[in-house]
Amino acid sequence: MPLLVMKFGGTSVADLARIENAAKKVQAEVARGYDVIVIVSAMSGETNKMVGFVEGTSKLYDAREYDAVVSSGENVTAGLMALRLQEMGIAARSWQGWQVPINTTSAHSSARFVSIPRDNIDAKFAEGFKVAVVAGFQGVSAEGRVTTLGRGGSDTTAVAFAAAFGAERCDIYTDVDGVYTTDPRITNKARKLDKIAFEEMLELASLGAKVLQTRSVELAMRYKVRLRVLSSFEETDENSGTLVCDEDEIMESKVVSGVAYSRDEAKVTLVRVEDRPGIAAAIFGPLAEAGVNVDMIVQNISEVEVGSSKGATTDMTFSCPTNQVARAQKAMEDAVAAGMITYDGIVVDSDVAKISVVGIGMRSHAGVAATMFKALSKENVNIKVIATSEIKISVLIDRKYMELAVQALHDAFELEKA
Amino acid sequence: MPLLVMKFGGTSVADLARIENAAKKVQAEVARGYDVIVIVSAMSGETNKMVGFVEGTSKLYDAREYDAVVSSGENVTAGLMALRLQEMGIAARSWQGWQVPINTTSAHSSARFVSIPRDNIDAKFAEGFKVAVVAGFQGVSAEGRVTTLGRGGSDTTAVAFAAAFGAERCDIYTDVDGVYTTDPRITNKARKLDKIAFEEMLELASLGAKVLQTRSVELAMRYKVRLRVLSSFEETDENSGTLVCDEDEIMESKVVSGVAYSRDEAKVTLVRVEDRPGIAAAIFGPLAEAGVNVDMIVQNISEVEVGSSKGATTDMTFSCPTNQVARAQKAMEDAVAAGMITYDGIVVDSDVAKISVVGIGMRSHAGVAATMFKALSKENVNIKVIATSEIKISVLIDRKYMELAVQALHDAFELEKA
Repeated sequence: MPLLVMKFGGTSVADLARIENAAKKVQAEVARGYDVIVIVSAMSGETNKMVGFVEGTSKLYDAREYDAVVSSGENVTAGLMALRLQEMGIAARSWQGWQVPINTTSAHSSARFVSIPRDNIDAKFAEGFKVAVVAGFQGVSAEGRVTTLGRGGSDTTAVAFAAAFGAERCDIYTDVDGVYTTDPRITNKARKLDKIAFEEMLELASLGAKVLQTRSVELAMRYKVRLRVLSSFEETDENSGTLVCDEDEIMESKVVSGVAYSRDEAKVTLVRVEDRPGIAAAIFGPLAEAGVNVDMIVQNISEVEVGSSKGATTDMTFSCPTNQVARAQKAMEDAVAAGMITYDGIVVDSDVAKISVVGIGMRSHAGVAATMFKALSKENVNIKVIATSEIKISVLIDRKYMELAVQALHDAFELEKA
Repeated sequence: MPLLVMKFGGTSVADLARIENAAKKVQAEVARGYDVIVIVSAMSGETNKMVGFVEGTSKLYDAREYDAVVSSGENVTAGLMALRLQEMGIAARSWQGWQVPINTTSAHSSARFVSIPRDNIDAKFAEGFKVAVVAGFQGVSAEGRVTTLGRGGSDTTAVAFAAAFGAERCDIYTDVDGVYTTDPRITNKARKLDKIAFEEMLELASLGAKVLQTRSVELAMRYKVRLRVLSSFEETDENSGTLVCDEDEIMESKVVSGVAYSRDEAKVTLVRVEDRPGIAAAIFGPLAEAGVNVDMIVQNISEVEVGSSKGATTDMTFSCPTNQVARAQKAMEDAVAAGMITYDGIVVDSDVAKISVVGIGMRSHAGVAATMFKALSKENVNIKVIATSEIKISVLIDRKYMELAVQALHDAFELEKA
């Protein structure tokens, strides 16, 4: 029997009516001849409520107890979904993490999968059950304690089950109807993609297009699990949503697939840092330890000031989220105090945004950067920092030009055309 | 290390402040040198919310899914209680039913204990843990499904753990401060009992004094678990509350320990039932099948009507809860239609109450019934039905005299005196 994994997030199971709506989508797949593994999140709001209880009880909480508490919401939804499916005449039962068992590491609140043995669920399918409803986000450690995977963990659970059971596809039902060429709130020319490659999705996800958790896409890419993102709140069929898949499956490969942006970026420049071997480590080591998520890094060419007692110096620029600037400054001051680095000053620009164009086609096409820079130049948008990877070009620009830049790039790469 | 079991009901853990309050009571016992097993209910309201979810999803629900859903609240409280104890510097951890494991039958929603192996929890005590916080009301079946024990199950969990771990005592913290000679709302002479025998508590519990679930008292009696009922909301020490124990432990044994009442009783009389062997079974079989909780039964002496074609007849009277009268009448009519019984009519008196005096001292003291009847007669209260057991005398009277009768009997047996 072909098997599908279907995952419903918190807003898709927020109340009994929505659970029923989700159950109807499961029913449709059973009618198409699939055995189905359904992964459910907690009703939206429930997990936050539990986190509030824990934080109200203990500041430096025991993560094992945190996990035992916050995992409760998924168990509730799993039971209710199984009941609803039974009401529809479908043989279904719920599975809590320890019942499968979903074996994970003991890294509570950020556990990783160790193994998902198929025996128990396969035995039920063999008995004639059509649907296994599994509580997402949770697992069990070797010590027999309940673990959780961290936020967004239910997506990861879904992909892991799809991999373990060799599912034909893993459908992620959420509150958007797919992955778009860019944010439709910024340009109404934004177009829903039928397909997107794992690598592209990864770049888009990490750039702030919060449709799928990065970790779930990584896992899908590693195990070649075909992922589909589609809406819980619309009529859907076999062709709905966006398929995230291996690039081999994408025939019409455009050079650029999407334009992503990240609004809350800051640019930090250390002026005239002593330029010597090991200086980058001396800067970015302390930043990492301070929990600063450094994204782009640019180092200017070295210069030697005439008549200066200092040796060669360089300007070091990096970007990080706006709300981490204070932390970054503190880390740099501490590094100076500890004699690890010297510089003449820190210049912070908190009013920048990051714009990226992403596409696997870039690998084989030249001229993408030129097209991008020309489009921005035409709108008089000044580029402050540039960084590139194999399938992505990112620039930092003044935040006030962000929408304009996204629109200009969307037009320049003709993303409105299928 | 001596061991205590402490159980906190839903109102005692209704919010974070109350959980903290309960945790302080645990802390006090740890300070006195005890290892403690804490049994917790769900925050009050939570279980009802879950039951509402299940009933809103499925009318004839799968009890296995019902149990998976409704057991979630206890897991939350167990985790939060463990966290709160840790905050107080006490080595504690939570245990869900399957982790202990609390092995039960597969009779979902009314499961019975099969075994509670001590190994896992004992190993943690040996490691230096002082408190095991166990989710009440739940267990796990041989099939690995979550089970629940039915309403009030957390009391039963507490007693079962006290028996399994040889606890010195099982303290049930609730919203009353002990067991009284009668309901203090009816007479302010009602006095809190320091001790009461299991048998007496059983009669009082089943008569409507809803301090402890009948099943937990039965279990305590069978395993000679000393139970203490005391208040979560007052300062408590070693002598607080009421101890429910073996009668051997009660030195000052009064003849009567308490006066109980049950307001919503109905008296049903089948007039001139054919008096033949097997007639009682023909009446009470169908009533039991219809789910009527018959309590008292009185059969008048047989009479033969002169000139009647009928044989000997008798009047058969029984009592049942008022809201079951319609069901009882239907069952009797069906039995007539099926040719199982004949009678001349049914007389229902829905305005009666049951008053009982209870005391293990009755076994060795005569004259209790005489004192009771004299006290009621003095107040002109007419007795409609009398039933007796070894340690209890119950009467049905007009409901309007209920408070008066309770007060008169409380005075007659001098229950205000210690």
